[in-house]
Amino acid sequence: MNYSLGELAQRFGLEVAGDAAVHIGGVCTLSPGVSGRIGFLANPRYKSTLAQTQASAVIVGRKDAGSLTGNGLIARDPYYAFAQVARLFDASKRFEPGVHATAVVAADAQIGEGVYIGPLVIVESGARVGAHSYIGASSFVGSGTTLGTACRLEARVHLNAGVTLGDRVQIQPGAVIGSRGFGNVMGPKGWEEVPQLGSVVIGSDVEIGANTTIDRGAIDDTVIANGVRLDNLIMIAHNCRIGEHTAIAAMTGIAGSTRIGARCMIGGAVGINGHIEIGDDVFILGRAMVTQSLPDKGVYGSGLPIAPAKDWRKTVARVRRLGKLEDRVRAVEQHVGLKGQEQDDDDDVHNNG
Amino acid sequence: MNYSLGELAQRFGLEVAGDAAVHIGGVCTLSPGVSGRIGFLANPRYKSTLAQTQASAVIVGRKDAGSLTGNGLIARDPYYAFAQVARLFDASKRFEPGVHATAVVAADAQIGEGVYIGPLVIVESGARVGAHSYIGASSFVGSGTTLGTACRLEARVHLNAGVTLGDRVQIQPGAVIGSRGFGNVMGPKGWEEVPQLGSVVIGSDVEIGANTTIDRGAIDDTVIANGVRLDNLIMIAHNCRIGEHTAIAAMTGIAGSTRIGARCMIGGAVGINGHIEIGDDVFILGRAMVTQSLPDKGVYGSGLPIAPAKDWRKTVARVRRLGKLEDRVRAVEQHVGLKGQEQDDDDDVHNNG
Amino acid sequence: MNYSLGELAQRFGLEVAGDAAVHIGGVCTLSPGVSGRIGFLANPRYKSTLAQTQASAVIVGRKDAGSLTGNGLIARDPYYAFAQVARLFDASKRFEPGVHATAVVAADAQIGEGVYIGPLVIVESGARVGAHSYIGASSFVGSGTTLGTACRLEARVHLNAGVTLGDRVQIQPGAVIGSRGFGNVMGPKGWEEVPQLGSVVIGSDVEIGANTTIDRGAIDDTVIANGVRLDNLIMIAHNCRIGEHTAIAAMTGIAGSTRIGARCMIGGAVGINGHIEIGDDVFILGRAMVTQSLPDKGVYGSGLPIAPAKDWRKTVARVRRLGKLEDRVRAVEQHVGLKGQEQDDDDDVHNNG
Repeated sequence: MNYSLGELAQRFGLEVAGDAAVHIGGVCTLSPGVSGRIGFLANPRYKSTLAQTQASAVIVGRKDAGSLTGNGLIARDPYYAFAQVARLFDASKRFEPGVHATAVVAADAQIGEGVYIGPLVIVESGARVGAHSYIGASSFVGSGTTLGTACRLEARVHLNAGVTLGDRVQIQPGAVIGSRGFGNVMGPKGWEEVPQLGSVVIGSDVEIGANTTIDRGAIDDTVIANGVRLDNLIMIAHNCRIGEHTAIAAMTGIAGSTRIGARCMIGGAVGINGHIEIGDDVFILGRAMVTQSLPDKGVYGSGLPIAPAKDWRKTVARVRRLGKLEDRVRAVEQHVGLKGQEQDDDDDVHNNG
Repeated sequence: MNYSLGELAQRFGLEVAGDAAVHIGGVCTLSPGVSGRIGFLANPRYKSTLAQTQASAVIVGRKDAGSLTGNGLIARDPYYAFAQVARLFDASKRFEPGVHATAVVAADAQIGEGVYIGPLVIVESGARVGAHSYIGASSFVGSGTTLGTACRLEARVHLNAGVTLGDRVQIQPGAVIGSRGFGNVMGPKGWEEVPQLGSVVIGSDVEIGANTTIDRGAIDDTVIANGVRLDNLIMIAHNCRIGEHTAIAAMTGIAGSTRIGARCMIGGAVGINGHIEIGDDVFILGRAMVTQSLPDKGVYGSGLPIAPAKDWRKTVARVRRLGKLEDRVRAVEQHVGLKGQEQDDDDDVHNNG
Repeated sequence: MNYSLGELAQRFGLEVAGDAAVHIGGVCTLSPGVSGRIGFLANPRYKSTLAQTQASAVIVGRKDAGSLTGNGLIARDPYYAFAQVARLFDASKRFEPGVHATAVVAADAQIGEGVYIGPLVIVESGARVGAHSYIGASSFVGSGTTLGTACRLEARVHLNAGVTLGDRVQIQPGAVIGSRGFGNVMGPKGWEEVPQLGSVVIGSDVEIGANTTIDRGAIDDTVIANGVRLDNLIMIAHNCRIGEHTAIAAMTGIAGSTRIGARCMIGGAVGINGHIEIGDDVFILGRAMVTQSLPDKGVYGSGLPIAPAKDWRKTVARVRRLGKLEDRVRAVEQHVGLKGQEQDDDDDVHNNG
């Protein structure tokens, strides 16, 4: 694989700066950079690396074009252009269709054309696998599941019976889709199981990270809309609905029946209560504790950031005696004849545990 | 599967409201509801759906019986009754006993009657699997493990050598039981391993969620008592002991040697320190940071809930200057002749990291 | 396996107290202790158990030697000595070399001498497995991976194509090494994938816990240095670098491109932002929220610890009205003629979501 700068420019609608005949055989970071490869500059913090990089070309935005000292490509969105170029050099998803001899495929499973089924894969009765899909090693495709066209189960993916995937869904190793929702009811002798009769319906162009779990619905389905991006080790509980093009970073957990709107961006390790609603275009910073609905577009956060432990302990002590501090302020106010403000100790903190 | 309302009432000790001959072929949610199926009303918030539902019957509590506009069943605990009815329609756990041709079962493993061993399952030497158990696809049952009667390893469950399960234990895909405890000691050249020679002992009627991990004990065992419910992506470290009927929501982590009492309810993403004790009937709200023992029954929580990021940043700044605010209040108190209260900056914050 | 106290003392450079001929056949905890076995005392809290233990010997530090009532071994570091002794009784890692009949091993994979390849393992084309390594049941060793000498993949470990392990790397079940980094860029129709062309390079003497995930780098590699200890359910995002002998407890997540120094100790459930730097010898308490670089050695923490829910709700309300309290203090200061201090509401809180 080898492309001239000119070919890359033409293919992706970019503008050449410098020598269009330079050959590019891969991508690299700018620092130190690799001769024969192309890097990109999106973050102005790294502008100084332009002069020193050993990369043979750099993709830059229009406003940084003047800083190019060597060859390059000028793009409206240099990171997006870089992703397009990099995809030319990504061989990781190419495969030869075929069913491995050790795969266990039910006789009545419907396997589309151009499909790869890897070693030790299990495809159960009634499953339908769309054309050009890749079912990687040791994956489990349960009975009655439906996979659209060009899906990719990287390896060791578990799709419980009845799960539905749209087209081009990509799932990383260890993800479990359709596990039993955590539905329990206290009976006379202890917890009893509430049957989880729904399933999981996943749209098209969805990506799901390694060891993420998505529980099936109790009665209706858990729904992941088109274009959603889920990172690793995420938990989506039963009956959640995640809106189109929402992206969620690793280790975030969403309790049951919560609905999340479209185009949200949710940071890592966020905890979101059950039975609440997050609107469209909501941006939640990492590690936030979401105890109530957030219907309005905006940026949200919570938590006390890191400090030296000695300071942190003092802060905790001060926060714990805030009630006393308020009392002291009130006493001073009364003493000097200022009217103390009313307090509302009943501020509502939602948290369903 | 099809039952008349009268049959359901008789089977579960409920009272019919309306036509006992109505046939019920499944369950549904109330909104919109499905004709031929039965729903339930437990949360008074949804009472208004009773009038519009297309469900053919609704299970309600005695106090809502008057609001029924169609047919229904009256129950003391409508959610519990619903769970019982729903179980009639849950075919997901029925199976034909037998050992799949691709399973790798040691010659000296003891397999009880009526057991199912799925494709690509591994059962190692000396394992004992109780009658009517289901060992789902790609599960690993290590040497010397013991499973009681009617256990269910859904799929891809890992039971390390020596793990013991009681009866009717249910484990979701990807769970790892008996992984090495995180025991390390600093030696002259770096971390060295402290052997983890204990195992994991799990009682009866326990449920364990997808991708949850339970480490084996260092010397003694890690113990999960009867009736415990563990959701997905939970971490139970070595030598923890979880008491009977305690339920723990997803993504909660419990550090080593901590003991948790009976009938506790612990929310999602709670972090619990090692070497502490939680009493019986303790209720911990989601995302709490449990740094010290909680011997007394009660409800506990911690953390700062979500706010618009602008407000959150101001709050963090204010908390950080709380020490200055206390100084200012003291200065005012002295200025006006009020005696400032003593401060105790040595408040004890337990946190063993 | 049976050793006299004298043999143990000689083997590990310890001093015998009492009868050197006593035979030891295993290890135990001190309370109640097991006759014929040896325990240890490291934490002075448990000193009182020395008199009552049924253990046949106890390993103690020099300062506790006087409290020994029975036989024992005296060590400079009793926990370290105990770990050495316990390793004599740990049979869990012994194995007979060989390739199981059900393993799927590529013809061109290079398998060193004395290697064990378990049932249903997959070793793909071009993989190189160093001598005396153990590849446990259902593990996946991708194409072009390299494993050093005496590695141990316990079971069901996933090594993506191209991953490199040093010597003596130990990985617990369910860990995923080399999953796709969470690299996405917004295109005209939604999120598009940024190819993740790097890999994961892991040094020697590294341990990785159950269901932990380590993503491969976007362009360069994700790097885990020699001697690192990672517990269960940890997330290491693409292009992170973890320094030598750093230990990280369960459920901690590290966002992309963050660098962590050598000999750090990071508690459980810590969330660490992307693109920051943690220096050497940094100690971070459990559940901390690390929003910014911590270049300096030291102990750090954050978060509000657990409280009764009623108190917690009041605390949250008080923190939320801190702005009002500051206003009231300023009003009092002005009223009594004290100059209010300036506030800085622009305190910088770093959090990239």
